[in-house]
Amino acid sequence: MFNNSRERIHIMSTERIYNFSSGPSMLPLPVLEQAASEMADYRGSGMSVMEMSHRGKDYLAIFEETKADLKRLLKVPDTHEILFMQGGATLQFSAVPLNLIGRTGKADYAVTGNFSNLAMKEATKYGDVHVACSSEDRNHTYIPAQADIKLSSGASYFYYCSNNTIYGTEWKYVPQTGGVPLVCDMSSNIMTVPVDFTKYGLIYAGAQKNMAPAGMAVVIVDKSLAGGELAYTPKLLSYQLMIESDSMNNTPPTYTIYMLGLVLKWLDAQGGIEGIGKLKTEKAKILYDVLDDSKLYTGCAEKDARSDMNVTFKTTSKELDEKFTAEAGTAGFEALAGHRSVGGLRASIYNAMPIEGVRKLADFMKEFEIRNS
Amino acid sequence: MFNNSRERIHIMSTERIYNFSSGPSMLPLPVLEQAASEMADYRGSGMSVMEMSHRGKDYLAIFEETKADLKRLLKVPDTHEILFMQGGATLQFSAVPLNLIGRTGKADYAVTGNFSNLAMKEATKYGDVHVACSSEDRNHTYIPAQADIKLSSGASYFYYCSNNTIYGTEWKYVPQTGGVPLVCDMSSNIMTVPVDFTKYGLIYAGAQKNMAPAGMAVVIVDKSLAGGELAYTPKLLSYQLMIESDSMNNTPPTYTIYMLGLVLKWLDAQGGIEGIGKLKTEKAKILYDVLDDSKLYTGCAEKDARSDMNVTFKTTSKELDEKFTAEAGTAGFEALAGHRSVGGLRASIYNAMPIEGVRKLADFMKEFEIRNS
Repeated sequence: MFNNSRERIHIMSTERIYNFSSGPSMLPLPVLEQAASEMADYRGSGMSVMEMSHRGKDYLAIFEETKADLKRLLKVPDTHEILFMQGGATLQFSAVPLNLIGRTGKADYAVTGNFSNLAMKEATKYGDVHVACSSEDRNHTYIPAQADIKLSSGASYFYYCSNNTIYGTEWKYVPQTGGVPLVCDMSSNIMTVPVDFTKYGLIYAGAQKNMAPAGMAVVIVDKSLAGGELAYTPKLLSYQLMIESDSMNNTPPTYTIYMLGLVLKWLDAQGGIEGIGKLKTEKAKILYDVLDDSKLYTGCAEKDARSDMNVTFKTTSKELDEKFTAEAGTAGFEALAGHRSVGGLRASIYNAMPIEGVRKLADFMKEFEIRNS
Repeated sequence: MFNNSRERIHIMSTERIYNFSSGPSMLPLPVLEQAASEMADYRGSGMSVMEMSHRGKDYLAIFEETKADLKRLLKVPDTHEILFMQGGATLQFSAVPLNLIGRTGKADYAVTGNFSNLAMKEATKYGDVHVACSSEDRNHTYIPAQADIKLSSGASYFYYCSNNTIYGTEWKYVPQTGGVPLVCDMSSNIMTVPVDFTKYGLIYAGAQKNMAPAGMAVVIVDKSLAGGELAYTPKLLSYQLMIESDSMNNTPPTYTIYMLGLVLKWLDAQGGIEGIGKLKTEKAKILYDVLDDSKLYTGCAEKDARSDMNVTFKTTSKELDEKFTAEAGTAGFEALAGHRSVGGLRASIYNAMPIEGVRKLADFMKEFEIRNS
């Protein structure tokens, strides 16, 4: 399906930029071209995928194939169910405690950035929440070691966020919890690292970084954990109901799921998670090497916690940071400003960012340093 | 923007069917073609709309224009705020009571079909719910008269669904409630009738019938009613938070909003709600005239409650209904089976269904009757 993308690029004569946005973010060009080519008539059906009944045979085939591809690529075991839910990762901040905290009324949270902090605060509405570790003391520039995690007794689950988009840190190990189910927000590094599901009660991810357009979360839950939601849980947030209805209690975000399907076909052609995993390490190293060889740039994250997805750095001044993003923008490198809460600079290099884009950014950074030293 | 659609149809050599699905449903062909043409490079930005940061200037311009067009076309006053929320209409079944029932702990519901019944049941989780009227006694084939509505005392709001997709009935009047705020699910007839917002505390609609692809609800709420949500309301379901963050507490469904924007431009070109309103009445009359002149077909809804959006009918037997849908499918008329809960036949003729499609279906119906009499 994606074997003649070069030719199609010509046909569409598209002038694409390199978009380093933290999300929504780049999608593979062949995926966008495929979507464009079948927009008004999906493979002879006479309809756009957007127009199809979610219970019709054309759409159900797309849905089932997408789910099967995700299960195969992520090696999801039969103990776990894949759910497509709306509301992005943020609605899962509520859904996780609503569904899972009832068993004991308590939960442990690792706070290593903005989003795990927001998730922790939301959970306090629904039970007793214990902060098992936090990296706030050094402004979230590191990931706590296993020895720094203080588990409470009787937690229903242990929650963490595996990659911190804003601070550019990434967990390099899976926390040990002594049998307490692990819950992980993988929004910004899903489909870039293998997942050992025997260790996870639940993982979830907002779609808009490595999977699809914004407007959906993929939730993968151990079926044995579902069914204990609190009485006032909005019904669409019930994992049990979503399992029973195969994510179709109401109309799912049909087109977003279709786009995910196209992205998964593309990922498969890149060698799946193993293939893309090698590439992502190579891509990150290109940028971190520039930082380490530089007198102008400083990496924000501590070295052993550096994210392969979000490379955070800064120059010697706020003014120079702004000059950098402005000149980079003119040169075709989009969205390199750091998150508005921390400032500085950030290059998000998800799966769909071509290595050429990273190499060209590295060249630009080196050239910028020469001009500004 | 949509002035050369005929030429583009040729270029794309699309073979389109007439899709009578109840939702997701047809979108205007020029809208799909526009979306396809700018899929990989939105108007020289070098990005797909799907790839844009929701906080970047390119996307914010789309967002603001869409919201402004919706405000203008629906004549939304400044007292009300337009929100783009995820989870479709069904998540609003929960959000409405979570946000609005707290004032008195009570609410009145009109049950005139499947979806208002589901909304009513969901609300019982959150307060005392009173069924103010119901059409269940005649299998939801009619709409109760004002005199049949029994208001309770002290309701926080009065809830109804203005068009019942499954049963093919539509409210022809706005219920009088003696000052109790009206809440209305307009999922299947929004953008087809004018709305007098002085009468409504809140209206909402799932996008996938008359507005955009599935995965979003448009909520238009009187700002003075927001802020009283129950303590355990998931934060993304708080109308107050959505108002304060302009629907961007987290990443909104960016592409769906963009598609809504294209649909609104198209709607404007059709003369807005007034122009499309005349057309929809004409379209519905074509099909109801066939039913009324027929010995084979029977309309399901009582005449004075007939929906202009969903024309429900049946032939003389289940077998003949199935023959009808099969032969219609072969002739290029898709999704004419009734909802699985009621059987029979249904033609959903939302704004994007061309009048030619309705005329051709009418011809097919008459010809089918001759062959099967």
